[in-house]
Amino acid sequence: MNLILLFADDFIAPDRVRLRGRRLQHVRTVHRAGVGDTLCVGRIEGQIGQGTVLVCDDALLEMQVAFTSAPPPPLPLTLLLALPRPKVLKRVLITATSMGVKQIYLLNSYRVEKSYWSSPQLSAENLHDTLCLGLEQARDTLMPQIHLRPLFKPFVEDELPSLCAGKTAVVAHPGDVRSANVPVLEPGLLAVGPEGGFIPYELDKLQATGFQAISLGVRILRVEAAVPALLACLFPPSGA
Amino acid sequence: MNLILLFADDFIAPDRVRLRGRRLQHVRTVHRAGVGDTLCVGRIEGQIGQGTVLVCDDALLEMQVAFTSAPPPPLPLTLLLALPRPKVLKRVLITATSMGVKQIYLLNSYRVEKSYWSSPQLSAENLHDTLCLGLEQARDTLMPQIHLRPLFKPFVEDELPSLCAGKTAVVAHPGDVRSANVPVLEPGLLAVGPEGGFIPYELDKLQATGFQAISLGVRILRVEAAVPALLACLFPPSGA
Repeated sequence: MNLILLFADDFIAPDRVRLRGRRLQHVRTVHRAGVGDTLCVGRIEGQIGQGTVLVCDDALLEMQVAFTSAPPPPLPLTLLLALPRPKVLKRVLITATSMGVKQIYLLNSYRVEKSYWSSPQLSAENLHDTLCLGLEQARDTLMPQIHLRPLFKPFVEDELPSLCAGKTAVVAHPGDVRSANVPVLEPGLLAVGPEGGFIPYELDKLQATGFQAISLGVRILRVEAAVPALLACLFPPSGA
Repeated sequence: MNLILLFADDFIAPDRVRLRGRRLQHVRTVHRAGVGDTLCVGRIEGQIGQGTVLVCDDALLEMQVAFTSAPPPPLPLTLLLALPRPKVLKRVLITATSMGVKQIYLLNSYRVEKSYWSSPQLSAENLHDTLCLGLEQARDTLMPQIHLRPLFKPFVEDELPSLCAGKTAVVAHPGDVRSANVPVLEPGLLAVGPEGGFIPYELDKLQATGFQAISLGVRILRVEAAVPALLACLFPPSGA
């Protein structure tokens, strides 16, 4: 937790917040903060700044807060992800969120196990908690949007063309070395298949919608490694 | 398991192997292979090829095997990793192995919890099993070497200078945007700190040994996302 994410309910005055539960525990056990210490805070969908600890005990954390700067810029990328198994989903969502992705479509695919769609991990509350972890990690405040698309064909045929309009769209196909890597840099879409990859029918459908197949090389990576590797390749850090 | 990794003990003839346990279970439940099916196999430290299933039942898997091609080229990079907590270590080792890293030094650092050094995850057997998962994922056969270095200062002072000789060495420092990203491409070293980063003393010691600080940007990533992102940045896929 590199930033304490604050919500409307946390405010007891315009410049004062009161926290309990997970965030209190984290500040006490990891930050080991005491009265007078300052911590990085951020208002959900708003600015980031500093909180000065006024009270920190077993029951509550109270801080005076001031917001001074914008959150880091989002990545101009929409991620289409074949729904991974629940544990992997959680890690990939944290990673994608911490890297700045704001639009994530979770897709069905032939190789996605049906049971994954009934995982509690997909409840609105659990998704929200997972995304908060990613935002707190990267000192961001802009909540990503998750779109569940349990039917592949209608999504690709009816919705995807307008999502793609005017954008670069690439699909990562493990082991496919025919295509060179294409830096997106402009607003784009990235599709990542399930373990085992998209089946040929799905790849054809995506390519017919304008997706270009790219590859990270002959080595096949797990989804949780492929996503950060692809994001880093497509949006290399520019330095300063 | 995109490749079934074979060891000397598995061979009952020069072209025949007999497997039980984890690999048998995986072939039965995930590949659902039957007699006559072919599977990708690789001989540890040797070539990859194909296995044709001769027997596959509850008790054993027997295959006729032929080896035809070299494993994918290793990444010419030595990874120095501040020891993460055991669960994260396992995932990062799988990722680094699947991306082709062959030399991994696990270091102490001020922010590494002492208890991590007594984790069963660090036993030779568990490390071996973890690395096998990474090799199987990436269809590789060349086992990485893991070096445990529970003392930071003697390692950096006595051993690191000769490891660095003639190589590009970079240390990833979260949030440090002063340095642009430097593609390594040639043989190199990459140091990745613990959650919270190396402390200034450690960073100074690494820089005094010739390490250049690089950053992935203002967003701070978890180690398990930072490692694949850094490897992908430093060794972008060339395509074909």
